[in-house]
Amino acid sequence: MLANTGRIDHESSAAVARDLPCVEAELDRFYPRRLEPDQLEWWVPGDSLGSADRPGLAERLERSIIAPVRETIDAGGHRWRPALAAQAVALLGGDVERFAPILAAMEIAHTGSLIVDDVEDEAVLRRGRPAAHVVHGMPTALNAGTNAYFALDIALRRTLPDHAPLRGRISEAYVEALRAAHTGQALDIQGHHAEMEHAVSTGDSSALLDVVRLTHRLKSGLIAGAALEMGGLSTGAGPEVCRALGDFGTAVGTAYQITDDVADLSGVTRRGKPTKRPAEDLHNAKVTMPLAHCVGRLPAPRLRAVWEAMRSGDAPQHEIELAREAIEECGAPGVCEAEARTMLEDSWNRLRPLLPDAPATERFRERAFHYVLAGLDARAADSSG
Amino acid sequence: MLANTGRIDHESSAAVARDLPCVEAELDRFYPRRLEPDQLEWWVPGDSLGSADRPGLAERLERSIIAPVRETIDAGGHRWRPALAAQAVALLGGDVERFAPILAAMEIAHTGSLIVDDVEDEAVLRRGRPAAHVVHGMPTALNAGTNAYFALDIALRRTLPDHAPLRGRISEAYVEALRAAHTGQALDIQGHHAEMEHAVSTGDSSALLDVVRLTHRLKSGLIAGAALEMGGLSTGAGPEVCRALGDFGTAVGTAYQITDDVADLSGVTRRGKPTKRPAEDLHNAKVTMPLAHCVGRLPAPRLRAVWEAMRSGDAPQHEIELAREAIEECGAPGVCEAEARTMLEDSWNRLRPLLPDAPATERFRERAFHYVLAGLDARAADSSG
Repeated sequence: MLANTGRIDHESSAAVARDLPCVEAELDRFYPRRLEPDQLEWWVPGDSLGSADRPGLAERLERSIIAPVRETIDAGGHRWRPALAAQAVALLGGDVERFAPILAAMEIAHTGSLIVDDVEDEAVLRRGRPAAHVVHGMPTALNAGTNAYFALDIALRRTLPDHAPLRGRISEAYVEALRAAHTGQALDIQGHHAEMEHAVSTGDSSALLDVVRLTHRLKSGLIAGAALEMGGLSTGAGPEVCRALGDFGTAVGTAYQITDDVADLSGVTRRGKPTKRPAEDLHNAKVTMPLAHCVGRLPAPRLRAVWEAMRSGDAPQHEIELAREAIEECGAPGVCEAEARTMLEDSWNRLRPLLPDAPATERFRERAFHYVLAGLDARAADSSG
Repeated sequence: MLANTGRIDHESSAAVARDLPCVEAELDRFYPRRLEPDQLEWWVPGDSLGSADRPGLAERLERSIIAPVRETIDAGGHRWRPALAAQAVALLGGDVERFAPILAAMEIAHTGSLIVDDVEDEAVLRRGRPAAHVVHGMPTALNAGTNAYFALDIALRRTLPDHAPLRGRISEAYVEALRAAHTGQALDIQGHHAEMEHAVSTGDSSALLDVVRLTHRLKSGLIAGAALEMGGLSTGAGPEVCRALGDFGTAVGTAYQITDDVADLSGVTRRGKPTKRPAEDLHNAKVTMPLAHCVGRLPAPRLRAVWEAMRSGDAPQHEIELAREAIEECGAPGVCEAEARTMLEDSWNRLRPLLPDAPATERFRERAFHYVLAGLDARAADSSG
């Protein structure tokens, strides 16, 4: 299938990390497929329930708060952030089972952010299925997605009931990353058209690349960094290790976003079904890393033509196809890939000396590189096959 | 003006609490009207800035993250939550100036929730001006509104840098209330049509009143309770006082929502300009407390007629006007007011013995009752004048 379509199938090419039963069990506890009346206290503080009709309330909250998130979780997702954090916990000698509620909360918050993103982008598909706001209506989906940000609080109290200072440090690392992610999203929503215009006119892409890199780092990097830092903190590892783990996670998350930009050029499938048309970002006039790296690589008139064709956001299919070919031919995707690899390797080289000299450390590295580069490798294999 | 329109003017009838210069100053620091390049670290973690164009970035973040929130703050708002929390801090011997960043963060988060609510409700006016999503576009407004929830984290670190356990307790009280508010919003978005239908058919409004009360408590009560509890915690007050303060705040917030339902029947003006048409809730087929209290007070056929007219959400103006008259004639607004007063008084009687026997305590009570009942009092004065 891959060889025929030239598309990346995320489900088959990247190892799916749903092989952590303790995390799946915690997802089921936080966001059960069926909310029982005796589980209401998770959602409604106990002393507020009064004489409420518990079965009726459970049914209403299951539909309005749980289902939009649960269905999006069930639709797929690599769970690579919690999987990588779990590996970090394990190799530092921590207890993954005990940390599982926090890992599940990370995935829940990530899912919530996807639901909110889809509202902001008016995206109708997510993971190959109708987006939550299409199924449940915008208000309910948006409210449930926002609420998912706050799952960590319960997870921390369950996991570390007697460690208030550690709960506080973990929570602060997470909230700082959430704030950064919203700053990145603000830049992403605005787009980088002025910077692109400047780069096209002058041939100088430095300011453009700065802002694309910053946006990727803020939007996708720091939250992955927080996930690994939180893992380190939970094991009682020292500040130097936690910081280096956080930096490596940030590199992984940022590099993942870079390779995602590259993967978009070919489109994405999941279990053989397309979830995005090829070059969705070009269709949406989005200035991504491969486009930025075309500056200085495409002849100026051709770059100008590509940009003019896509910038309005309503280019016909054949113009987008020409733009995509130009981007690929000039080698920009390879430059992106090299940047992602270098980012990972530099960061890994700083972290490596601080980790145990054990096979688990090498497996951690392999898994992290795999998440970022699997899509590209699949594509390379695909082109050559 | 009031005497002519029969409407409540929130700005003139309720004491506006913008008389806390320390809170206004903190609002200016968190959400400055102009973001200077040396203030970027508040939004972008310092080590992410790299070679970024700081003035350009400051300008972009001012437009995309700050302006939607700042403009909504500037459009008005009573600031009654931080004002009441400030009074609680002062009468327990705490330092209001020191607590000011936390008070400002409460108002910022509240403002963020209004921006998100307006997206969910597709409301085009807020505080008499175009809503943030109308001015800035939905994606930018929604993202900025969500991000405003996370201001407390910075405020806590600024206010209590050396008190990690206390930061944690304050943060947890707040996040639990935020979760509850989203649960309340979920119920509010669904509406209570099934419960209303049951009450209209059977004459038994107990389940309906239960769910309306629970929704008000979750959506508006507990976050006001958290504000007062956070004030108590910051002064080092004991758990009994903090809990009773939190309960009183919850009563104030819930009662405020009840009187808001009543006020809606007459419409709301601000500085003489209407911000909502009369009976907006009836137009929107929203089952509010006054409507719920019509069950058993209106003759069954008339109640059925009111409900049938409004339930579709597209009733003509004259039918809404008849429904409004029926609700007012049967005395339901007065029952709501009595419920709000009793809620406040019961809760106050439990808190009062735990507070200092001082004039400040009486002023605190007066201010709290005033926030809840001012609109109604103004209306009563209005009708009689």
